[in-house]
Amino acid sequence: MNISIIGATGYSGVELVRLLLTHPEANIVAVYSNSQTGKTMQEVYPHLMHIFTDDLAEIDCARIREEADIVFIATPSGVSGRLVPQLLDGKLKVIDVSGDFRLATPDLYQQWYGKETAGQEYIDKAVYGLSEWNAEAIKETKLLANPGCYPTATLLSLLPLLQENLIDGKSIIVDAKSGVTGAGRGASLGTHFCEVNESISAYKVGKHQHTPEIEQTLTQLTGQDVLLSFTPHLVPMNRGILTTSYASLKDGVTVEKIAGAYAKAYEGKPFVRLRPGEYPKTKEVYGSNYCDIAWHVDERTGRVIILAVIDNVVKGAAGQAVQNMNLMFGLPETTGLAFTPVYP
Amino acid sequence: MNISIIGATGYSGVELVRLLLTHPEANIVAVYSNSQTGKTMQEVYPHLMHIFTDDLAEIDCARIREEADIVFIATPSGVSGRLVPQLLDGKLKVIDVSGDFRLATPDLYQQWYGKETAGQEYIDKAVYGLSEWNAEAIKETKLLANPGCYPTATLLSLLPLLQENLIDGKSIIVDAKSGVTGAGRGASLGTHFCEVNESISAYKVGKHQHTPEIEQTLTQLTGQDVLLSFTPHLVPMNRGILTTSYASLKDGVTVEKIAGAYAKAYEGKPFVRLRPGEYPKTKEVYGSNYCDIAWHVDERTGRVIILAVIDNVVKGAAGQAVQNMNLMFGLPETTGLAFTPVYP
Amino acid sequence: MNISIIGATGYSGVELVRLLLTHPEANIVAVYSNSQTGKTMQEVYPHLMHIFTDDLAEIDCARIREEADIVFIATPSGVSGRLVPQLLDGKLKVIDVSGDFRLATPDLYQQWYGKETAGQEYIDKAVYGLSEWNAEAIKETKLLANPGCYPTATLLSLLPLLQENLIDGKSIIVDAKSGVTGAGRGASLGTHFCEVNESISAYKVGKHQHTPEIEQTLTQLTGQDVLLSFTPHLVPMNRGILTTSYASLKDGVTVEKIAGAYAKAYEGKPFVRLRPGEYPKTKEVYGSNYCDIAWHVDERTGRVIILAVIDNVVKGAAGQAVQNMNLMFGLPETTGLAFTPVYP
Amino acid sequence: MNISIIGATGYSGVELVRLLLTHPEANIVAVYSNSQTGKTMQEVYPHLMHIFTDDLAEIDCARIREEADIVFIATPSGVSGRLVPQLLDGKLKVIDVSGDFRLATPDLYQQWYGKETAGQEYIDKAVYGLSEWNAEAIKETKLLANPGCYPTATLLSLLPLLQENLIDGKSIIVDAKSGVTGAGRGASLGTHFCEVNESISAYKVGKHQHTPEIEQTLTQLTGQDVLLSFTPHLVPMNRGILTTSYASLKDGVTVEKIAGAYAKAYEGKPFVRLRPGEYPKTKEVYGSNYCDIAWHVDERTGRVIILAVIDNVVKGAAGQAVQNMNLMFGLPETTGLAFTPVYP
Repeated sequence: MNISIIGATGYSGVELVRLLLTHPEANIVAVYSNSQTGKTMQEVYPHLMHIFTDDLAEIDCARIREEADIVFIATPSGVSGRLVPQLLDGKLKVIDVSGDFRLATPDLYQQWYGKETAGQEYIDKAVYGLSEWNAEAIKETKLLANPGCYPTATLLSLLPLLQENLIDGKSIIVDAKSGVTGAGRGASLGTHFCEVNESISAYKVGKHQHTPEIEQTLTQLTGQDVLLSFTPHLVPMNRGILTTSYASLKDGVTVEKIAGAYAKAYEGKPFVRLRPGEYPKTKEVYGSNYCDIAWHVDERTGRVIILAVIDNVVKGAAGQAVQNMNLMFGLPETTGLAFTPVYP
Repeated sequence: MNISIIGATGYSGVELVRLLLTHPEANIVAVYSNSQTGKTMQEVYPHLMHIFTDDLAEIDCARIREEADIVFIATPSGVSGRLVPQLLDGKLKVIDVSGDFRLATPDLYQQWYGKETAGQEYIDKAVYGLSEWNAEAIKETKLLANPGCYPTATLLSLLPLLQENLIDGKSIIVDAKSGVTGAGRGASLGTHFCEVNESISAYKVGKHQHTPEIEQTLTQLTGQDVLLSFTPHLVPMNRGILTTSYASLKDGVTVEKIAGAYAKAYEGKPFVRLRPGEYPKTKEVYGSNYCDIAWHVDERTGRVIILAVIDNVVKGAAGQAVQNMNLMFGLPETTGLAFTPVYP
Repeated sequence: MNISIIGATGYSGVELVRLLLTHPEANIVAVYSNSQTGKTMQEVYPHLMHIFTDDLAEIDCARIREEADIVFIATPSGVSGRLVPQLLDGKLKVIDVSGDFRLATPDLYQQWYGKETAGQEYIDKAVYGLSEWNAEAIKETKLLANPGCYPTATLLSLLPLLQENLIDGKSIIVDAKSGVTGAGRGASLGTHFCEVNESISAYKVGKHQHTPEIEQTLTQLTGQDVLLSFTPHLVPMNRGILTTSYASLKDGVTVEKIAGAYAKAYEGKPFVRLRPGEYPKTKEVYGSNYCDIAWHVDERTGRVIILAVIDNVVKGAAGQAVQNMNLMFGLPETTGLAFTPVYP
Repeated sequence: MNISIIGATGYSGVELVRLLLTHPEANIVAVYSNSQTGKTMQEVYPHLMHIFTDDLAEIDCARIREEADIVFIATPSGVSGRLVPQLLDGKLKVIDVSGDFRLATPDLYQQWYGKETAGQEYIDKAVYGLSEWNAEAIKETKLLANPGCYPTATLLSLLPLLQENLIDGKSIIVDAKSGVTGAGRGASLGTHFCEVNESISAYKVGKHQHTPEIEQTLTQLTGQDVLLSFTPHLVPMNRGILTTSYASLKDGVTVEKIAGAYAKAYEGKPFVRLRPGEYPKTKEVYGSNYCDIAWHVDERTGRVIILAVIDNVVKGAAGQAVQNMNLMFGLPETTGLAFTPVYP
């Protein structure tokens, strides 16, 4: 497979490079960046010395259509909405790692992202790439909307319980914690080491753009009515997301039913590890494509608390994108992704 | 005031030393530790060189009753329950920084702490030291149960809303994040740098001993029926607690009513700073006795999300203990506590 | 004392605010910033809420000369060189926390800083403010050049040994490690959390502008010929500098002579703590004005290795500036600076 | 190749597991641990769930001799000295990741390690496994002493310059900085998160057991007389070593000669990356087997300053051990080690 990457200098882009370099079927033919055009990847990321030293080219959709079998777009939001119409032509497959094709309508996107994306006809072509839940559609699509980092952990946590009708969709609260790579590589006071280190804080309470992505997908895939609170937090670490999700159990739901729902949902899914009663640490999936899920039933309150951890740059971005690429090209899901977490 | 400290070598104990050394009315007459008897404080904590170099004595209740006007007990749980009966005599006042006198009955303590504490007659003597809410009783007591770190931030967040009947006491979820000092100075795999750094995890889900302390106090002080979920998390930082609390608003509750409840509760309270709509960082109260509280109304879900930050070692332990000492001796609450947070 | 602060929004400036707020003789009359004019300090630093909420004014030298007894300049290098000629008039005293008046000639400054500073006549008026070594001159000056962070730790380490002629001035190597506050609050890729965290690196090898400041002062104060290597490193922490200095011992120098030199130099100096044979941690001086110094004689190699730790924002900047202010106004050196380190 | 690992539960041991699991020629037949016998690897390291779940067996040398082609010993020092005589028999090859076979005599070991190791006859059988410098001997040996973490970075930095006679062997100073994994997984106050975080300190000044390993190897491989100062420091990060080495240049040595020495030494060496004039960060080799080397000539002082970074758990331990295994079995050095650094 010949591969192009647009936005290769962001954290998701450079992680795509890392993963694809050891993928047995992948061949990176070109990397593109508008902000760093003319530099080599090694100049922007010295850790790639002797490994990947290609020049960063200006984005050229015609060249990509010609050279590549698949293109990954790992730009900030608001870019791929404009690029995709120029790319979707002929054999080229597109995986958009940004948020531009995830929400059901341009209006919803405008409301939560505060900017414009593609028209409805392009959004309608996109398949949502939650690999474990949407594999059949993923295999057929030419335009894939790769899930957001927070939605990945949240959806994998909640879908089994909603699908089996075990929890109340209106009772859900998701308290999420992320490492700083989630904020991107752009320099700002909010990502300054001294302002983040030895501190934790919430942000965008009630306003984060991943909220509608989570709600919409839960409803689409399970038919349940869902309205939830989602609160992201910034944690002084580079990588990792932990979501702590709370939901009220429906009457008569037992621990066994919960365990059964998870077992049924994730049987044969190589990247989901079920750890009932445990306390997964984000470090335990560091650098890998795993999502570890634990659950705890609190009989006092009638709630289930679900803990899920991912590496936000891997399963929450580049890793799941490669997993989806594998599905789109008929390869085993794990091809090029069999990384043991780097611990500690 | 002549002061003794039992358990001076833990993180709360040594913070008491720091705070009391610059307190204009305080005179530390002796420090006690069973684990480090015979060493000097400087041997255990080199940062105290030239500042505080007293020997650590074996615990001697008779000597304390004789020498001290007040004794702070900053031991692990299960110790002060045995010591207090030997200390409560004559003029001596006792502030217990551990959890032994916080819960209403020995049975409740046994259930959540898994060990024994004092008998009911001693528990009944203890006043719960949430300074901003219980000042009149604090001023009169000789035995003060200093609040836990998580309860302090949680209670200060929720009490105004429950007191004004603005939220549903059964809907409350508290998702709490703490720095590692909360785990104490004892060496264990769970506090090993490499196991904590670059990671976040939950612990004791549904089982943390601060849960009944929070519920009991909310009900005692507001008369409301409360049953809540409390989930603590370990964050890779030394100091700081952030609590993110969620509650369903009662019908017709407006942002103005919420603001009014907080303003009414904390008018004239020097250590509570109200920051509606903001995102307080734990670093913004580092080393100080402040509790910063922000709230966000999410109209989509009908919930209020309350963010509160404290330094767990100060307002969550030693600082509030000194604040209570001030109250017990008729001093202004802020005496010796007017620290600007150390930022960054 | 009425005090103005220029550059109050940098890390040194806001630390000056913290220290001066509890200084019994200090009254901050105005804070100035060209980059944030019109905002309040609380807007720029929320941790100052309810504590210090003054507006940030545009720099106005005439107003400062009128209102203030002393002005601190805590701007980036290259600014105070222009301001001082407008400030040095009448009774006003000036403490420059930046580097503009530390080097002996404008040419030397140009060579190492790559920009212009004041003319020779103003440089000649400036007294170098290494409090423990230059107190008599400091007491008399109206223009004080506050030492750099690295030079403070280095000079306090090396001066006693050079003064007593115990080490070879040409053999000295200083390997220095600093927290990220040393890089200032400006956002850049170099201070981005993810680029600094979980990493250590050197920078400006052989080129750091503190090198001539160190050499010049060592020679001026001891008469010894000095030529040294100085290498700074960036450590993933907020505050703290550790200097590890290496020097060849002259013939016949014993451990006792070394201990004697330090004892003689720092007898009665309240902010220097001598810890022979120990391994001081930067955390042990966190938030305080102490410099802890340890030394180890390596008989195999005939070298002495000196370890010194300071809080770069306190003893390395704002704290030493206040110490110098105390000297300049005839106050005890420790006034307003008797902080116990915040540990841990 | 059938592989056994003794001491699989330490940080080097579990990293061996990570590396060998994706090594195309490796098959781990058993893992041994005396401290955790009876547990599974997954119980001790939950990140290995679904990946490697073998039981930890009690050390059994007879079984190892029978089952394995090669055994890695990753125990604390003082263990392999006793084990090796029971293992060196028949076809079995041994790689000792601990320090027991690195020093030339039992006396030297006793002097620096303070305990006993194997007898001289076994030490004499051992080949020092600095892969880039000793490949021919490594290929022939059955007992390999894998280099220490600090020596690896230091030796790769200094050998080219000594071999070409460009620096004075008596002038060398090595100032080294390490992440906390270097201290092992044992819980102690010295590895407690709160005691390490936000701090840096030196340790074992003049006494570190890697000092004679460095000196001895420099002399053995270059014939130069060497006596150096080595100072290790603990940095608040998990992985990574940076060595900053200083040496006086011999007369007439130019930058070109230095560059030539490095180019000659490392031509065709896949894991050494030469970065003259740069400032390598430890994060740039994170999780990989690279050693990045930069050098800076300081003409003022006539010294060269060499910066080298490695991942202490990979190139400083498990990675180099696998590299040596490859050499010992006639495989390409890079087999199973072509990891891109995990950045950031």
